[in-house]
Amino acid sequence: MLNFNFYSPTEFVFGKERENEVGALIKKYGGSKALIHYGGGSVVRSGLLDRVKASLEKEGVPYVELGGVMPNPRDSKVYEGINLVKENGIDFILSVGGGSCIDSSKAIAAGSVYDGDFWDYYSGKAGPIEKALPVGTILTIAAAGSEGSGDSVITKEDGMLKRGASGSGIRPKFSVMNPELLFTLPSYQTACGATDIMAHVFERYFTNTKEVEITDRLCEAVLMTMIKETPRVIADPKNYEACANIMWAGTVAHTNIVGVGRDQDWNSHGIEHELSALYDCAHGAGLAVIMPAWMEFVYKHDVMRFAQVAERVWGCKMNYGNPEATALEGIKRFRMFLKSIGMPINFEELGAKVEDIQTMVDKMGINGETGGFVHLKPEDVKTIYEIAAKATI
Amino acid sequence: MLNFNFYSPTEFVFGKERENEVGALIKKYGGSKALIHYGGGSVVRSGLLDRVKASLEKEGVPYVELGGVMPNPRDSKVYEGINLVKENGIDFILSVGGGSCIDSSKAIAAGSVYDGDFWDYYSGKAGPIEKALPVGTILTIAAAGSEGSGDSVITKEDGMLKRGASGSGIRPKFSVMNPELLFTLPSYQTACGATDIMAHVFERYFTNTKEVEITDRLCEAVLMTMIKETPRVIADPKNYEACANIMWAGTVAHTNIVGVGRDQDWNSHGIEHELSALYDCAHGAGLAVIMPAWMEFVYKHDVMRFAQVAERVWGCKMNYGNPEATALEGIKRFRMFLKSIGMPINFEELGAKVEDIQTMVDKMGINGETGGFVHLKPEDVKTIYEIAAKATI
Repeated sequence: MLNFNFYSPTEFVFGKERENEVGALIKKYGGSKALIHYGGGSVVRSGLLDRVKASLEKEGVPYVELGGVMPNPRDSKVYEGINLVKENGIDFILSVGGGSCIDSSKAIAAGSVYDGDFWDYYSGKAGPIEKALPVGTILTIAAAGSEGSGDSVITKEDGMLKRGASGSGIRPKFSVMNPELLFTLPSYQTACGATDIMAHVFERYFTNTKEVEITDRLCEAVLMTMIKETPRVIADPKNYEACANIMWAGTVAHTNIVGVGRDQDWNSHGIEHELSALYDCAHGAGLAVIMPAWMEFVYKHDVMRFAQVAERVWGCKMNYGNPEATALEGIKRFRMFLKSIGMPINFEELGAKVEDIQTMVDKMGINGETGGFVHLKPEDVKTIYEIAAKATI
Repeated sequence: MLNFNFYSPTEFVFGKERENEVGALIKKYGGSKALIHYGGGSVVRSGLLDRVKASLEKEGVPYVELGGVMPNPRDSKVYEGINLVKENGIDFILSVGGGSCIDSSKAIAAGSVYDGDFWDYYSGKAGPIEKALPVGTILTIAAAGSEGSGDSVITKEDGMLKRGASGSGIRPKFSVMNPELLFTLPSYQTACGATDIMAHVFERYFTNTKEVEITDRLCEAVLMTMIKETPRVIADPKNYEACANIMWAGTVAHTNIVGVGRDQDWNSHGIEHELSALYDCAHGAGLAVIMPAWMEFVYKHDVMRFAQVAERVWGCKMNYGNPEATALEGIKRFRMFLKSIGMPINFEELGAKVEDIQTMVDKMGINGETGGFVHLKPEDVKTIYEIAAKATI
């Protein structure tokens, strides 16, 4: 096991109607004037935004609103938020939405107290982010895990560059998680979120660190939960228990408690980011196309690890005479599962184009090779895109 | 799933040689003068205490020492610590030891800023503990999980009353966890610690809350890790990887991330506390005798839950025609496992006496019945002690 620090100080406030406590939570964590940041009309239409405002008003917390966060959140909205914060003397950022909204909120929180362009953190010119206004979240989709992480991903519109930043300063102080808020999600979004959660686990699972049984088992626990509960939510979006399981699994998957002490991969995320940046597709849908292709490209690097997940998670019988067959069977079952919950599994289904592959490889800007489970050269990434392009079951 | 709050703000600093960072960690968390609290001679003999002092001296953090914490830590030592803190203007408590030492440190931290007798928190007269001096720990045994919890158990010498207190104020600010510090533990202590860790999971696993797949799976992950890694540590106490797995599993088992959203039991802990209070035996050894007996007494309340753990964790084959047989097979394998790692499984092996049973039942002071998975009346507890007394394999 590698040396590590694990620090997850976010207070998770989980369950029915907990969003009504948000005013008190903001005050508890030192906020006196809030920016309420949200995305599209669903939080308005559902009445959630009204309940949030009522809670702030009840506690005497004034607020300014900024809606319009888009999936794959943009730098322009972040600049808008930073200006609002500075003009209005805001000292707390409240995100009401999913991962995109949280990531945009984190960028605003960091940029508002940074003496320079917030993009410095995302371009790698500055970081990690240690100083930021406090952020709280009300989560409306189980997916990104951003509600419990110190990470944020923003897309710069000039060139559609999708880049990430990290730091303890942008970990949410609290995250309100009411599974009932998932009831109105379209199945496609639920499935995209579930795919993202599973991908967060797989990025940690495929490691070159040996003998990390505890984190292996914890990863498998989250994956098995997702395999059981996702189809239940798709079949019955108002199944509270199934929604609750997915929602907590999504957080556990990304606080890093299942990934400490081991090197991790994250190449599938990097490869996918070019897809969602170019086509503005959902991140989870892009991962459904990329991750099984990545697995097919790298599995020979550690056949027994792929056989292990095939047996423990996907319920394959170990083929002791041919472990490679078991490894491949596990990857096949992953892709079949993704298909079964309505995810695309190749370029055509995603709306991506083979002729863009070289552009995406170039945009990744790989300097020599990537890190991770298997180090990838640009030509390897190209092959992975090509496998993904024509995948079938 | 039940509504819950999950808040675990402790910074875990895990890995080789991390104890050398302790001086800087105390400063990071606002300490300017520390009480170094420890138990017996092992931390002195091993050189650990010298390394800790060197780290504090390097960072210019003055300190006062208080050794002599005993297993099943006593109130007298807590009073001694509180006096030292007040006399010396100490503002940080550093525990160097296992669960007993951490629990004693937490009691000192709370009692030093409480306007009254610290025992009020343990007798139920006051609480939860919200205000306390900051506590940091350097863990020397994987067992109690106290390094990541807001709990403390102290024994009052007058009457040998063993009682617990809780509150967010006594959660450690940081816990340093170096698996190498486990290398010198006697096998018996390792096994007691492992039993305690598994018991912390089982207390959460047996619940009346339905459809909590994520926490079921996380519980099972910790249990399977312990079943694999404990015998490896017993066979080879200097196996770093096995020690590391057990050490992190012990923390995961008790931060409550595996137990949120479900009602929990904790009757085995309550029943055991009377054994360790009366005979001063190790808590883990007492649990090894009590917990399987408790399982045999209650399993009919939810046969399928016991069958589930038998199949998923102990590798039993489900007997679909007779699930009860599977449930009982799982309990049997648990007891066999405990025996295999050197734990006592009945009163004789523990050094307990059948004629004390009624005294222990009376000392528990059950008012009507306990809460938990199965509510227990005093006569039920008596039966459990009787099953435990004569258990065999």
